[in-house]
Amino acid sequence: MSATQIYKHDQPFAFTRGGQLDAIELAYETWGELNEARSNAVLIHTGLSPSAHAASCAADPEEGWWEFMVGPGKPIDTERFFVICVNSLGSCKGSTGPASINPATGRPWRRAFPLLALEDIAAASRLVLRHLGVGQLCALVGPSMGGMTTLAHLRQDPMAARHLLSISSAPRAEPFSIAIRSLQREMIVTDPNWKDGQYSDDAWPENGMRLARKLGMVSYRSAIEWQDRFGRDQQSYYDEAWWGMRYEVESYLEAAARRFIGAFDPCSYLYLSSAMDRFDASAGCEDGLAEALADVRLDSALVIGVDTDVLFPARQQGEIARTLIQLGIDTRLEMLPSPQGHDAFLVDSDNFGSVVGGYFRSIAKRENIAP
Amino acid sequence: MSATQIYKHDQPFAFTRGGQLDAIELAYETWGELNEARSNAVLIHTGLSPSAHAASCAADPEEGWWEFMVGPGKPIDTERFFVICVNSLGSCKGSTGPASINPATGRPWRRAFPLLALEDIAAASRLVLRHLGVGQLCALVGPSMGGMTTLAHLRQDPMAARHLLSISSAPRAEPFSIAIRSLQREMIVTDPNWKDGQYSDDAWPENGMRLARKLGMVSYRSAIEWQDRFGRDQQSYYDEAWWGMRYEVESYLEAAARRFIGAFDPCSYLYLSSAMDRFDASAGCEDGLAEALADVRLDSALVIGVDTDVLFPARQQGEIARTLIQLGIDTRLEMLPSPQGHDAFLVDSDNFGSVVGGYFRSIAKRENIAP
Repeated sequence: MSATQIYKHDQPFAFTRGGQLDAIELAYETWGELNEARSNAVLIHTGLSPSAHAASCAADPEEGWWEFMVGPGKPIDTERFFVICVNSLGSCKGSTGPASINPATGRPWRRAFPLLALEDIAAASRLVLRHLGVGQLCALVGPSMGGMTTLAHLRQDPMAARHLLSISSAPRAEPFSIAIRSLQREMIVTDPNWKDGQYSDDAWPENGMRLARKLGMVSYRSAIEWQDRFGRDQQSYYDEAWWGMRYEVESYLEAAARRFIGAFDPCSYLYLSSAMDRFDASAGCEDGLAEALADVRLDSALVIGVDTDVLFPARQQGEIARTLIQLGIDTRLEMLPSPQGHDAFLVDSDNFGSVVGGYFRSIAKRENIAP
Repeated sequence: MSATQIYKHDQPFAFTRGGQLDAIELAYETWGELNEARSNAVLIHTGLSPSAHAASCAADPEEGWWEFMVGPGKPIDTERFFVICVNSLGSCKGSTGPASINPATGRPWRRAFPLLALEDIAAASRLVLRHLGVGQLCALVGPSMGGMTTLAHLRQDPMAARHLLSISSAPRAEPFSIAIRSLQREMIVTDPNWKDGQYSDDAWPENGMRLARKLGMVSYRSAIEWQDRFGRDQQSYYDEAWWGMRYEVESYLEAAARRFIGAFDPCSYLYLSSAMDRFDASAGCEDGLAEALADVRLDSALVIGVDTDVLFPARQQGEIARTLIQLGIDTRLEMLPSPQGHDAFLVDSDNFGSVVGGYFRSIAKRENIAP
């Protein structure tokens, strides 16, 4: 049984880049309880592909995508904090997106869905907060794309939170990550089954999605991790075709791609991927990020990056941290030595658990948030 | 007019992984003159895609792929050295490969061509040296895949050269580079026009080759270079489709892909790419590279790597250099700070020109090779 709830927003929602929908639905999940002072709410903006199911709970024991991080006694301790995770607007895990049914046609929106911006995702998630009666958040948390969304959120509402945890994120898309994502999208739209978004379940752009996910894995992990993990190990069985599936690393990528195929809508993927490319937290600001975030009031911030991350490099974590410091915010930058690259926040529970746990304990102490 | 010559080897050529051809042809080009002592010959093993036309000459003024490096008065000075460059066996630039005509059928070999190993490329190039009357080389030069081929060459003939220049190379394929190449091959063989190698000029796997070349560029260059060069610059014109061609970096990749399409045979690409994955200079040696190269006699070696190279990382340059030092060879390791990643040896003429020029001047001095 799913613990995911749906907030039905029955009013028009206008998109940043034009277009609007008469109504949207947002899937979200919560853990813990909002305290009387309404001072312990934590919102997690997710990366590109996760659902709202960040962690298991009594009602849904299935492991969540951030299981080691969120729960009773865990680094983001749900005995102290009321944790909310919203499936991004535009995604396909319960929230309205290109895969949802267009009520006017009875068929999926697909390419008729309005262009998406990360600012729309932030604005939609703020509707869920209002629905839940949460005013100012105790903390905003955003890993990867979610970190970009936290910056959009803070630009929209500079008083949105008292604390910020930004993980392996970026103030804007740089050309290397644009190149990777652009190529992933090209793989999908050149799959003969893409058909300009009119694919069917029977003729689904599986090959494009497989290639895109494999390239994703190449950019999410690191050469060092793979060297230690796979080396030149060969599979006991490999495809007789001489061009592939000989080495362990190849079957690892194939397994990751197979898990992804069918679990994510291609059109939704394209919308979210394009929204990341077009994101620039300092858009329209001649003086850059400091100008964009000039009104932000935070009591503290923790910016975490990973040495081996090639997609959201150290340099970009530095820019976020430096800017917050420049704005007078009590900010700490932690560059972790995890070998797992961009994905480390999902798998390196030792490094991430201890740093994030320490930060949330310090927040609880500072704000007197008791279990 | 082309200055490329063809050596017709009219005897059987046996391939390392099985199979043989009754005869092979090898395209090569030379610059300068072999001196009387036959002591000034330099052989360049190329990367995956270049032809034998490394540099222009009187007979062929067209710019070569290593124009700044090879020529009169240039770092590899053809007034002093007799320089030879062979198009790799298995390539499609004049040497016999999967794109060549199978005399038995009158049609291209394609997948009927024997499996290729870098050891075969080395062995074939040694036939050209014999044909030219070159005994021991003054120097072996190999950038990228060519550096791997120099190691295969030295294992076959430990006395093959007195000096070695290894550039951005590797003693073996590691899982990150295997993953990149495996994905490139998958892009090609899943192009509907691939047809198990039976593509025609009219229905050519252009999309697979386009994607593969773009991924190649992503792995050949560096994030830092692109950030400095493109930033978030947009094109004045971009495709209305919202998934691509908006940013400068995207049109840069598209232009690179278009130059490649039609200029390289897809089947040849797959053979060479697979040969790189399967290469391990220390195959069969329990004690690794030092055991594999134990009999090698070199008077000196220069190993050059580039800080920003993700495909042939610093670590692998270090292994080659350390091994040669361990074998008592006078070896220098130069890690250059070029921002252009793996491709730096093709474009960073300042850094590469000065280091390579210095090395070849020292060789000329040591060996009394006069202009």
